[in-house]
Amino acid sequence: MKKINTSPVSGAQEFTPDIQSVFNRYRNEIEHVFHSHGFLPVETPIIERTEILLAKAGGDTEKQIYKLVKTSETSNDPDQALRFDHTVPLARYVVEHQQSLAFPFRAAQVGINFRGEHAQRGRFREFYQCDIDVIGRNTLPIAYDAEVIATFYDALKCFDLPRMVIRISNRKLFSGFLEGIGIDESSEATDGRSLVSAVAGIIDHAEKVSLEKTLADLKELGISDDNVVKITTFMNIHGTRSEVEPQLRALNVNNEKFATGLDELLTVLRLLEQQGLGEVAQADLLIIRGLDYYTGTVFETFLPDYRKIGSIGSGGRYENLANNYTDESFPGVGGSIGLNRLFFVLRENNLLNLATSQPVDYAIIPISQNEYPACFELANKLRAHAKIVDLVLTDKRLGDKMTYAAKVAKFGIVVGEDEAKTGQYKVKDFATGEQTPLVLPE
Amino acid sequence: MKKINTSPVSGAQEFTPDIQSVFNRYRNEIEHVFHSHGFLPVETPIIERTEILLAKAGGDTEKQIYKLVKTSETSNDPDQALRFDHTVPLARYVVEHQQSLAFPFRAAQVGINFRGEHAQRGRFREFYQCDIDVIGRNTLPIAYDAEVIATFYDALKCFDLPRMVIRISNRKLFSGFLEGIGIDESSEATDGRSLVSAVAGIIDHAEKVSLEKTLADLKELGISDDNVVKITTFMNIHGTRSEVEPQLRALNVNNEKFATGLDELLTVLRLLEQQGLGEVAQADLLIIRGLDYYTGTVFETFLPDYRKIGSIGSGGRYENLANNYTDESFPGVGGSIGLNRLFFVLRENNLLNLATSQPVDYAIIPISQNEYPACFELANKLRAHAKIVDLVLTDKRLGDKMTYAAKVAKFGIVVGEDEAKTGQYKVKDFATGEQTPLVLPE
Repeated sequence: MKKINTSPVSGAQEFTPDIQSVFNRYRNEIEHVFHSHGFLPVETPIIERTEILLAKAGGDTEKQIYKLVKTSETSNDPDQALRFDHTVPLARYVVEHQQSLAFPFRAAQVGINFRGEHAQRGRFREFYQCDIDVIGRNTLPIAYDAEVIATFYDALKCFDLPRMVIRISNRKLFSGFLEGIGIDESSEATDGRSLVSAVAGIIDHAEKVSLEKTLADLKELGISDDNVVKITTFMNIHGTRSEVEPQLRALNVNNEKFATGLDELLTVLRLLEQQGLGEVAQADLLIIRGLDYYTGTVFETFLPDYRKIGSIGSGGRYENLANNYTDESFPGVGGSIGLNRLFFVLRENNLLNLATSQPVDYAIIPISQNEYPACFELANKLRAHAKIVDLVLTDKRLGDKMTYAAKVAKFGIVVGEDEAKTGQYKVKDFATGEQTPLVLPE
Repeated sequence: MKKINTSPVSGAQEFTPDIQSVFNRYRNEIEHVFHSHGFLPVETPIIERTEILLAKAGGDTEKQIYKLVKTSETSNDPDQALRFDHTVPLARYVVEHQQSLAFPFRAAQVGINFRGEHAQRGRFREFYQCDIDVIGRNTLPIAYDAEVIATFYDALKCFDLPRMVIRISNRKLFSGFLEGIGIDESSEATDGRSLVSAVAGIIDHAEKVSLEKTLADLKELGISDDNVVKITTFMNIHGTRSEVEPQLRALNVNNEKFATGLDELLTVLRLLEQQGLGEVAQADLLIIRGLDYYTGTVFETFLPDYRKIGSIGSGGRYENLANNYTDESFPGVGGSIGLNRLFFVLRENNLLNLATSQPVDYAIIPISQNEYPACFELANKLRAHAKIVDLVLTDKRLGDKMTYAAKVAKFGIVVGEDEAKTGQYKVKDFATGEQTPLVLPE
């Protein structure tokens, strides 16, 4: 009888080992692809000084930070809390270790973050994030935006997901366009809000509402009918480079920021085309993302055949990673996969590849303790061939041992007096019940 | 100029990427060996309900627990804190998921734990622990004690460490021996403490002090001269199975617990001998470990040529993993490697294998943007051969690109107009300066 509630805390995913091994495979493959593209392993402590976290956080995020109660041994230390993303610690890391790093610095971070937010289905308070970032010192060529997106795609490609599309826009293009039609940072909506951010919000939500609603919302901000048409024309532009380039030029926007944004967007698309990603990576001006952070390229990844899932990974270009910590300039571009949410939605949509969910290859089952030496030898041989081997060392009946073996392993090898003597073993495939002789490569 | 202190929190290890990649290699190899022996991946949340942690913790550990301040969104949740080891969450996990697990359940846990303890050199507040445990339901054969020790040895063996010795004792042997000479759980020392635990403390410290000091300490507890001699004879027994067996039998202890402990110890040693570990795994009755937890086999791993380093991994048998959470009985045996401390002491003693600390194999250096397509193609080819490839996409001078490349990668491939046209590439070995043609296996 249980004496105590043994469920994990609310907002955490906890798996049985079969599912955990699948989760780990996803995590390891993402990390492996990041590394294979030259992104270097970075791991910062989970605990950060609160001062570091608050320098960057704001709004909801600040309220979600898990702060630590001091222990008697840490009472003289500054206030501490749990990191809520990888970007803030990376900024601190880059400033701290800049003398040892080669720039542009490619960082890969795969680790756990914490947000004490409202618990809900498919949202987690403790979750793995898989991040890559390229950080320049003073400058960072636009080619790295394409490099991050290509790496991101390679990482997600491991999982045999249905058709993926990476939808790309550019914040300079967006704000340059608005400036071109007379809406700039100082413009106010009828309700006094920033007009640029109000329009961004409407575009960001446009896919979830009807066109009529979008038009009405834009008009309600006090935007002229003429400009409403221009904005909806702009936001509906999407497709491959050759599809969007003429449409964007036809907008006839006479604005330097727009021109820069257009050039950046087309460059990113062209570099991705050169890597065979012309169909996967498409321009889509509906993509907006967090206004106060990204300053150039922005992207989100979707499975078009599973629209309800929403974005499964996103990122973009930021002007300065570390402006809260230093006067030096560290422009960067990065992307992040929220692994627990991704795993949750893939599982819910039966898109999880559970193929190798049985982590143990062979269970070796000695009939009696007399066979232990032969079993140890066999186990070592199989492990030398990179096999995962469990030795069933219980003193139960053979039937019970077989039940255990079939539960944990793909194959079973029963070792009795004869097998131990001759070294001739039979392998039982638990899925089919078939028995075949064990043949080990020399 | 820095605006803020960017060092990591006190008590955390933070590495530059070259060292981080070595650390990760150690961590991954340990985890890989655990899995190859059939230990299944278990990952519990870092955040646990305080109630769960306090049910098991006590004394110093309780004071070291990092408790969390509630956020506005978690205010209705029970009190939460950070886990301080893997054993407590494993106990909760086994009780919670017992219907889905196959027993004996082999669990491997590699993850971060937290203790807000006094910060000191080589001790960390946030640290990786690499644990294996085998948990039985109601019973667990002694063979699993040997299995844990053999797996542990295999994991540590990866790192080309100097000669290792796993020193093994048995708590039943220890308390049975004391009972045999008239000292049992109810015996009190002259100062009123439990005599068994006072003797355990003295044996535990015996290696750090002179024999005279140990003898004096034992006498001070009120132990007879005759028994002092017997205890020192007992504690100095160490060696291989064939060496210790006659010495232990010659003690002539007439006690059932002693007989059981002797049988267990000799069985563990014999099973390890059968795996070729007869010299590595030796009996040593100086090994004591935490009194309130272990109930049978106890072991600690040492590098005899580096005595100052102390134990680099330890474990033992416990009667009941989850007695604080359930009435059912889950006997277990496990071991734990404190990876951050191990890494720290190995590095300090120049025992760290830094061989593969350059995580990037090739840096591809385009002369101009015209060569990007050829570079993308070459990078993909190399990655298909499991190579780690960085593309140097800065628009700096070639010299600057080469400086960057030599800093991050082992080899460099410069791609100009000719190389892009012919597909004939030269590889520069940055360590030797030598250039050789790139030959890719088909």
